[in-house]
Amino acid sequence: MRTVTAEIITIGDEILFGQIVDTNSAWMGTELTKLGIRVKQITSVSDEVSHIVAALNDARTRADVILMTGGLGPTKDDLTKTVLTAYFNTELQLHEPSLADVKAIFKNRNIELSELNRQQAFLPAACTPVRNAIGTAPGMWFEEDGKVFVSMPGVPFEMKRMMTDIVLPRLKEFFDTPQIIHKVVQTVGIPESTLAETLEPWETNLPPHIRLAYLPHINGVRLRLTGTGQEPEKLEDDLLEQLNQLTDLISPYIFAYGEISLEEVVGMLLNARNYTIATAESCTGGYLAHKITSIAGSSMYFMGSVIAYHNDVKVKELKVNPETLAQHGAVSEEVVREMAENVRLKFGTNVGIATSGVAGPDGGTPDKPVGTIWIAYADKEKTVTKLLRYNKGRLLNIEYTAMVALNLIRQSLTGTVEE
Amino acid sequence: MRTVTAEIITIGDEILFGQIVDTNSAWMGTELTKLGIRVKQITSVSDEVSHIVAALNDARTRADVILMTGGLGPTKDDLTKTVLTAYFNTELQLHEPSLADVKAIFKNRNIELSELNRQQAFLPAACTPVRNAIGTAPGMWFEEDGKVFVSMPGVPFEMKRMMTDIVLPRLKEFFDTPQIIHKVVQTVGIPESTLAETLEPWETNLPPHIRLAYLPHINGVRLRLTGTGQEPEKLEDDLLEQLNQLTDLISPYIFAYGEISLEEVVGMLLNARNYTIATAESCTGGYLAHKITSIAGSSMYFMGSVIAYHNDVKVKELKVNPETLAQHGAVSEEVVREMAENVRLKFGTNVGIATSGVAGPDGGTPDKPVGTIWIAYADKEKTVTKLLRYNKGRLLNIEYTAMVALNLIRQSLTGTVEE
Repeated sequence: MRTVTAEIITIGDEILFGQIVDTNSAWMGTELTKLGIRVKQITSVSDEVSHIVAALNDARTRADVILMTGGLGPTKDDLTKTVLTAYFNTELQLHEPSLADVKAIFKNRNIELSELNRQQAFLPAACTPVRNAIGTAPGMWFEEDGKVFVSMPGVPFEMKRMMTDIVLPRLKEFFDTPQIIHKVVQTVGIPESTLAETLEPWETNLPPHIRLAYLPHINGVRLRLTGTGQEPEKLEDDLLEQLNQLTDLISPYIFAYGEISLEEVVGMLLNARNYTIATAESCTGGYLAHKITSIAGSSMYFMGSVIAYHNDVKVKELKVNPETLAQHGAVSEEVVREMAENVRLKFGTNVGIATSGVAGPDGGTPDKPVGTIWIAYADKEKTVTKLLRYNKGRLLNIEYTAMVALNLIRQSLTGTVEE
Repeated sequence: MRTVTAEIITIGDEILFGQIVDTNSAWMGTELTKLGIRVKQITSVSDEVSHIVAALNDARTRADVILMTGGLGPTKDDLTKTVLTAYFNTELQLHEPSLADVKAIFKNRNIELSELNRQQAFLPAACTPVRNAIGTAPGMWFEEDGKVFVSMPGVPFEMKRMMTDIVLPRLKEFFDTPQIIHKVVQTVGIPESTLAETLEPWETNLPPHIRLAYLPHINGVRLRLTGTGQEPEKLEDDLLEQLNQLTDLISPYIFAYGEISLEEVVGMLLNARNYTIATAESCTGGYLAHKITSIAGSSMYFMGSVIAYHNDVKVKELKVNPETLAQHGAVSEEVVREMAENVRLKFGTNVGIATSGVAGPDGGTPDKPVGTIWIAYADKEKTVTKLLRYNKGRLLNIEYTAMVALNLIRQSLTGTVEE
């Protein structure tokens, strides 16, 4: 079966000038992929007639479906409807159901219907109107030479509603799409290149209908297996077989299958053990606690933190021995160990986790340059410490430290701490 | 003077499949716009040789500069370097300085250099290498027919560093771009629509060589005045005159001129008064402390925090009266007031700031729905409280709360708290 291909065209200067981030395309890409439609290109063009036409002409040479967003507002700089009317050699005519929708919206808002908004109910005669249940600009569905062109508003919630309710079901029916299944494996603590070398022999032997992609991120490298086929069950089996082989090769570094974050995994591990946790943070300054509490329901296991930026706070609140501080300095294995052990006792939690390091850009010494960071994990049975040397600027140093700390919790709870 | 045009090409299936949102292009669009270079198109293409080549061929018909990101990793699915080597009819050769950089990075991480990473130091002979100070994939700068092609990694912080340090200055020089001066005015606490209504008469009367842009963000609305001209001094004068008029209209809402963050402004206000600060956080879970400590040098004024997620911690560590808790609940003016006042006394700081609210998605009640958040500021003379009702999802609720708390510190220190 031939793969159905799609292209997305976003229209409007605000994306080109960087005034807004294009989140629509990622959402559409996800939904089309789930449907088995392969997105070939995403193109953002300016509000210019010739440029929009050129983009349409290019796209139809490559794709079966062209999805457009933006340029449907009532103002002068919104050109999409005008362009499409000319492009499909048709003319505008009043679409009564759309006019009724627009009128209802204005009545609901208690505003008088303006002439500009009335004009939004005039649509190209050649299109099938796509109802906008929550906004004033209807969408348009065109078919030509077996290809589909859909124009939708750029307002994210209007576009999403239209896609979900109307466009995606209609595309599925129109193209009778093949089966595509993705499996995501998330790793942490192994550099992309080491991962690639480890996986190379296996990757080379992957069957042709399964592909591997590396998606690196500060929090680790995500691996994505994509399978294409006819029979969903066989495809699922093929993918699971490859997932098992993959797992055998890199199991200690895998923290999740699917779209789950490391902090979510840590929360699940704590919950499963009925454990509570507290943090004692110096260099991360609250960011580690923030990551933990970014998860809904974290109040089940997170008790609280002491952020001990100043050494006085380390001594007074975390009972770090002033002699330890004087002898080894705040950024030391000895101090971070006391911080983790003592915050655990202070809050009566099962787990204590602590950070102390030189986040930079200042504060480094020859002995302890910027990016020297100590982390400690403590529970009833053990205390584990880890030294990082990582310097990519203050904010990334903080984020990276929090990620390694979360991984240290995961490793400690699952008994997989590296030596 | 002719306008220099640019196109951005992002390479990689992960954007097309919606697995990551393309934030790089928006950032690049902003920076190019600031330089006076007009972005004509942003194109995301898949990891396929013919597709990348087609995108390059299309782009060069429209633009003077083609900036590419992605596809430079050490793995098989990364094709950009191979494609560019063929496209510019050249060959790979070892670039010794890049090899030295890659080696240094691996030495620093205490990992052995792999053959795959060694290959990253092989670059097309026809390019000028662009140094990657913080990653293993160098960038490449090509020139052909008066056009510039630059390839950079897709990792945002590596791309940004490369753009800022090398690519943008080199483009400015290469194209001798016109004089463009930007003035940024940052506002907080006023909605975009109110701002637009207030500024409309003034905006309408702006001289043609000065343009205004609204850049809304969760942290407030940034206003950017852009002046284009020949004589820098006159342009600067014209912009300052408009800045003064603008300031007269919205002065209470302006927290900064230029690219300074609210947390940086708060740090400067504290430093100027020789004040110290501590936070007591419930719903923000450390995020407020993180914002404060994201600023280099914040150890001058930030002492530490108690994150009191569990009520026991509020009572034990922050001495919140259990009767206050029982009577009013954790999310109440009374409790947040005690938290702010007591954390100030506990850490011996000039200022205490506290948050307590329902971040969601669960935990709401009819009386205190999700998004009900109390904030308190305390110093020697006064305690100021503020109630928020804001619900855009857990993470945004947390971010918004931290922003309002920072603004409350700013307003309290400058004596401009609203009634």
